[in-house]
Amino acid sequence: MATDFTEETAADAVIDSFAKTPDPRLRELLSSLVRHLHAFVRETEPTIAEWEQAIGFLTATGQKCDDERQEFILLSDVLGVSMLAETINNRKSGGATESTVLGPFHMIESPRRELGDTIDLVRTGPPCLVRGRVLSSDGTPLPGAELDVWQASDQGFYDVQQPGGQPRTNGRGLFTADADGAFWFRTVVPSYYPIPTDGPVGTLLNATGRHPYRPAHIHFIVTAPGHRSLTTHIFVAGSRYIESDAVFAVKKSLIKEFTPVDDPGQAARYDLPSPFSQASFDIILQPNATA
Amino acid sequence: MATDFTEETAADAVIDSFAKTPDPRLRELLSSLVRHLHAFVRETEPTIAEWEQAIGFLTATGQKCDDERQEFILLSDVLGVSMLAETINNRKSGGATESTVLGPFHMIESPRRELGDTIDLVRTGPPCLVRGRVLSSDGTPLPGAELDVWQASDQGFYDVQQPGGQPRTNGRGLFTADADGAFWFRTVVPSYYPIPTDGPVGTLLNATGRHPYRPAHIHFIVTAPGHRSLTTHIFVAGSRYIESDAVFAVKKSLIKEFTPVDDPGQAARYDLPSPFSQASFDIILQPNATA
Repeated sequence: MATDFTEETAADAVIDSFAKTPDPRLRELLSSLVRHLHAFVRETEPTIAEWEQAIGFLTATGQKCDDERQEFILLSDVLGVSMLAETINNRKSGGATESTVLGPFHMIESPRRELGDTIDLVRTGPPCLVRGRVLSSDGTPLPGAELDVWQASDQGFYDVQQPGGQPRTNGRGLFTADADGAFWFRTVVPSYYPIPTDGPVGTLLNATGRHPYRPAHIHFIVTAPGHRSLTTHIFVAGSRYIESDAVFAVKKSLIKEFTPVDDPGQAARYDLPSPFSQASFDIILQPNATA
Repeated sequence: MATDFTEETAADAVIDSFAKTPDPRLRELLSSLVRHLHAFVRETEPTIAEWEQAIGFLTATGQKCDDERQEFILLSDVLGVSMLAETINNRKSGGATESTVLGPFHMIESPRRELGDTIDLVRTGPPCLVRGRVLSSDGTPLPGAELDVWQASDQGFYDVQQPGGQPRTNGRGLFTADADGAFWFRTVVPSYYPIPTDGPVGTLLNATGRHPYRPAHIHFIVTAPGHRSLTTHIFVAGSRYIESDAVFAVKKSLIKEFTPVDDPGQAARYDLPSPFSQASFDIILQPNATA
């Protein structure tokens, strides 16, 4: 091993230092990290003051975290890293529905509800019916598939962000698809909302002229026996910020029309006022790889 | 801007999001960071569990920091990033002395001492004389150059690491070179020592089979009017770990022999016992660029 540190040999020297790592995957990850991190430093040639700023930013990001706040996930989100990891881990196959980020608000177990129930316990927003079927890649319905659903209110807040301001479990429901794999539930059309901006990530967005908003969406985790679990959203077509999601989670296939339905018969059938909005979303799950 | 997130277009989409950054340097830094960070993720394809581990590690690193501990600097150190930034910022020119990392222990102002004074207030280690001259690149002596010097004890601890165990300012001194640019002071031959291992960086070193030790060294910050300030060390030739400094700070030109001197006359002249060790270190400063 050389004792002489030079810009050209530095990355190799650091990678060499990890040569005895017992876990080969850890060694692979660290070697690649060092290679890319050193390439970044050599390319940008940060001043010592810039290096100190970076150290300060990372330190503040760690110190902002607590039981209810994960600022490093937020940083990963606004740099597109969370979506990249999610996408790599869920490469679509056989036409399955695309995944997107889990997000930080799946904090509590959703309450079990019957098909057709509403997850809207407040009744202030535009009423809406969400319906669809859960299918396997070959089109076979998946009866008994489970759908965990959560969303922000029409004011842009999740229940957990407004303790006292919203009933607990508002905007959440756990549904079981029927014998045809069909599901339907009532809710309000969700609103766009900002990610938390009172930490270092907010400072970063502000310094770079980026807005903190996410377009309106509804979260889903869908599971069925013999199939890969799917974490995804549907996005409200035409929502503000649909072109510039602060966390880069929009995929075109996940954008859905929330269509006005002005039909008193339909409204009565679903116990909704007329007119209401309707979104249709068929969910295709990928079978588990067989051994 | 595309609304469709794909592995291939993700880095460009994130870089686009920084297009309105008012400070062009911040935009340059973030664009390069995103490019390299996404390349790392695409190359290694981390699982969601690995991504969560990385988030947890960074969070714990931030949370280990306090007024006396900077775990993110330590992380930068053990990944060779601190040395890379230091080296880029001090590219040698005209034969000037090479720089190395500041390290985390220059915490207090060194006490002013007279040439020939000892910085060893404990008198337990092998006695030593350090001497040399401060010169400009063209060989001109720099009378009145200031040398801020600090080092660990022969037990491997800085004074600030052993409050109560060592006198405050043990191992520290601020000296002024004489009319010939010469300096000399007495001390103990320093020892190798471990960086702190009770945090996430220690966990990383342990998981990768890396030791936490730095070879024996003495720190210098040297300043003179009209010249660039120099932050450097001298390393004790033959010290354990000289080939594997945990923070990669060794440069060959900074390794110095600590030569035994068995000469009662010399010993008496410097008020040292006989035999003692002697290290010689001429320091060459780079003139400031003229406008």
